[in-house]
Amino acid sequence: MKDVSVGICGLGTVGGGTFNVLTRNAKIIAGRAGCNIRIGRVASRTPREDIDMGGIPFSTDIFDVINDPDIDVVVELIGGYEAARELVLAAIKNGKHVVTANKALIAVHGNEIFEAAEKANVIVAYEAGVAGGIPVIKSVREGMAANRIDWIAGIINGTGNYILTEMRAGREFAEVLKEAQDLGYAEADPTFDVEGIDAAHKLTILASAGFGVPLQFERAYTEGISQITPYDIAHAELLGYRIKHLGIARRREDGIELRVHPTLVPRSHLIAQVDGVLNAVLVDGDAVGQTMYYGPGAGDEATASAVIADIVDVARTVSSGSSQRVPYLGFDPSALEDLGVLPMEDIQSAYYLRITAMDHPGVLAKVASILSEHGINIESIMQKESELKDGRIPVIILTHTVQERQVNRAIEELEALTDIDGQVVRIRAENFN
Amino acid sequence: MKDVSVGICGLGTVGGGTFNVLTRNAKIIAGRAGCNIRIGRVASRTPREDIDMGGIPFSTDIFDVINDPDIDVVVELIGGYEAARELVLAAIKNGKHVVTANKALIAVHGNEIFEAAEKANVIVAYEAGVAGGIPVIKSVREGMAANRIDWIAGIINGTGNYILTEMRAGREFAEVLKEAQDLGYAEADPTFDVEGIDAAHKLTILASAGFGVPLQFERAYTEGISQITPYDIAHAELLGYRIKHLGIARRREDGIELRVHPTLVPRSHLIAQVDGVLNAVLVDGDAVGQTMYYGPGAGDEATASAVIADIVDVARTVSSGSSQRVPYLGFDPSALEDLGVLPMEDIQSAYYLRITAMDHPGVLAKVASILSEHGINIESIMQKESELKDGRIPVIILTHTVQERQVNRAIEELEALTDIDGQVVRIRAENFN
Repeated sequence: MKDVSVGICGLGTVGGGTFNVLTRNAKIIAGRAGCNIRIGRVASRTPREDIDMGGIPFSTDIFDVINDPDIDVVVELIGGYEAARELVLAAIKNGKHVVTANKALIAVHGNEIFEAAEKANVIVAYEAGVAGGIPVIKSVREGMAANRIDWIAGIINGTGNYILTEMRAGREFAEVLKEAQDLGYAEADPTFDVEGIDAAHKLTILASAGFGVPLQFERAYTEGISQITPYDIAHAELLGYRIKHLGIARRREDGIELRVHPTLVPRSHLIAQVDGVLNAVLVDGDAVGQTMYYGPGAGDEATASAVIADIVDVARTVSSGSSQRVPYLGFDPSALEDLGVLPMEDIQSAYYLRITAMDHPGVLAKVASILSEHGINIESIMQKESELKDGRIPVIILTHTVQERQVNRAIEELEALTDIDGQVVRIRAENFN
Repeated sequence: MKDVSVGICGLGTVGGGTFNVLTRNAKIIAGRAGCNIRIGRVASRTPREDIDMGGIPFSTDIFDVINDPDIDVVVELIGGYEAARELVLAAIKNGKHVVTANKALIAVHGNEIFEAAEKANVIVAYEAGVAGGIPVIKSVREGMAANRIDWIAGIINGTGNYILTEMRAGREFAEVLKEAQDLGYAEADPTFDVEGIDAAHKLTILASAGFGVPLQFERAYTEGISQITPYDIAHAELLGYRIKHLGIARRREDGIELRVHPTLVPRSHLIAQVDGVLNAVLVDGDAVGQTMYYGPGAGDEATASAVIADIVDVARTVSSGSSQRVPYLGFDPSALEDLGVLPMEDIQSAYYLRITAMDHPGVLAKVASILSEHGINIESIMQKESELKDGRIPVIILTHTVQERQVNRAIEELEALTDIDGQVVRIRAENFN
């Protein structure tokens, strides 16, 4: 069977990992693919002295790869939005199959890219873009094909999960962030990770592949973890919950919920036990129920594992003479539904509320009455006399499931009370029922 | 695009679930498959009054399905060995693709069946045979394609996991087994489940798909959970471990370890948290590291989810005009390695030992000296004076990793001591390092 020739664009962390694994495991990979997968060309702005290229053609211009007639599959590992978009569209135009690890590219420009690939009859694969080495796109698009997928919830940013895990020991966000930066887990500018933008890219892709709707990143809601305190983490634990930075997508009749925010999850649920830089994605289907996919969400060879799985998929499909076997978003383009993302006020959730009450008589009654007026039922309430300080005392409330709009209105009224000091802390909670 | 016509053989739990999900989710499934998947015929010894067949042809002879020229894909859900083997081989001979949920069939007759399918150029798919609704065969054969898979460890029998979970509350094996039978989690004859035979079928398949070796069920080692006591479970917990009935497959230079037995796993590891009837499979690859796949390992619609995922895979492949895209065992038949299963004496593991010592002076020294002579190092040792009863006291030892042969010899010598009463309890322990 004919060799498949791969051109690697970008030789950073993932590019280097891909080069090394393709080289080291060449025999195993050929055994699985049914043909040799050969690195035909590598391009990167800066060469890497630490990798032995063994005579493989090297360019500093990534466009050399897509113009090389020897290359069958272009592997885009340069990252970013615009340059990657240009590269991928040009590769498609040249009739190359594309494998990418670029979640931002797919979340933002995926609809355009898939349409171009469909016209050119080439494959675009993006497993490595979501949850690194975990084959969750494959599981959702293929393994769950029988199911109406109802919701997906994931810990899909390792940096944020590392920070929240370390904060359980009572440490402050800023201190752990600095440590994560020193360890290389967090970027110098941590915004993408800690504010949930990176997770929202991945969630956008997961939701579209699971529900069969176009990519709608611009309508995803993101809330970061920088406001989370060790105090709230400890009190959530007392209530039997753990705070995780979750991406949650839910399919409803009237649209989809698409949101990344700190979330209380039951400590007894398996996803609460996923600690450190690891990732996990829970998928709920109407036939199978809940399944979970767990593993490293980043790292050179872990991400390369997903990149190469896609290359093998392309090789298996191409060498059997057919084109894109699995539709880009799991559903045939003609079967995609025109379902929009819902505004956050329309979502339903349980809520953890932390209210700083003045030590006045009757304040609890006022709080309870405001919640009740907005149809909010209380599951648990905690107030400890020992925490009274400067005439203020924290009141912790866990509500039953309610519409976010109701909670927002109740919070407005609570904050207007002279018996309440400052803002109400509000963190969403999920029971996965 | 042409419809794909499916013939269902067997209308028990999984057959009924498959019928219902294919009918209920027909539109979603067609959207994913790119064509309609139509039930063309159903055959079962006994009709089911509770299912509305809606005019679909029904036979009591399963061979009607494989002889029906309208049928593209035969779904084998009758179970068992010989009748299923005959049916599947005849279906292949008639040019039908086959989807099966029958782990016993594949583990025992898989080599023969795959060879016949290869010759006839049809697909045989068996995702539902391993871990029910969890797409673990897909993850191993496709998602992990870049990796040299080093080991696989799984909780792949829900009945056994349910029993061990309940026993943590101090209940005896026999009592929980009876309850499991009353709840319908365990069969009237529970041998297949509690003695590890069912798990060994699944492990055999996982190992071959992961390592690229022929199926060798007859050489798998099985040890059941009927000898596990609440006492050992409690002491394992004190040592920081949980007892799980694991299937473990490990690839070594000289062969593969293929074994099902009760195993201590660190309580801090995610797999220790998988409770009740749920399944989970840990896969360790050289590039990706550890990934885990979790979900329901049985049940009508959960298993149907995997059956239908395979049907969609067949439909996507067939409608794109190609044949078996993914090799049966993940590797091209010509790339399969002739690696044999190792004898249990050659495996390496840590061990939990419970020794009933007579309350004689110097007995601990004798025990330690025998272990030391066999190159066995002790990680933890526990002996509580308060447990002295009738002149006997339990000594609990956790060893470092050592070859099983050494442990067996040491146990022989220990049991020969007059200072030791009865047999030494030995349970293997894994740290997943």
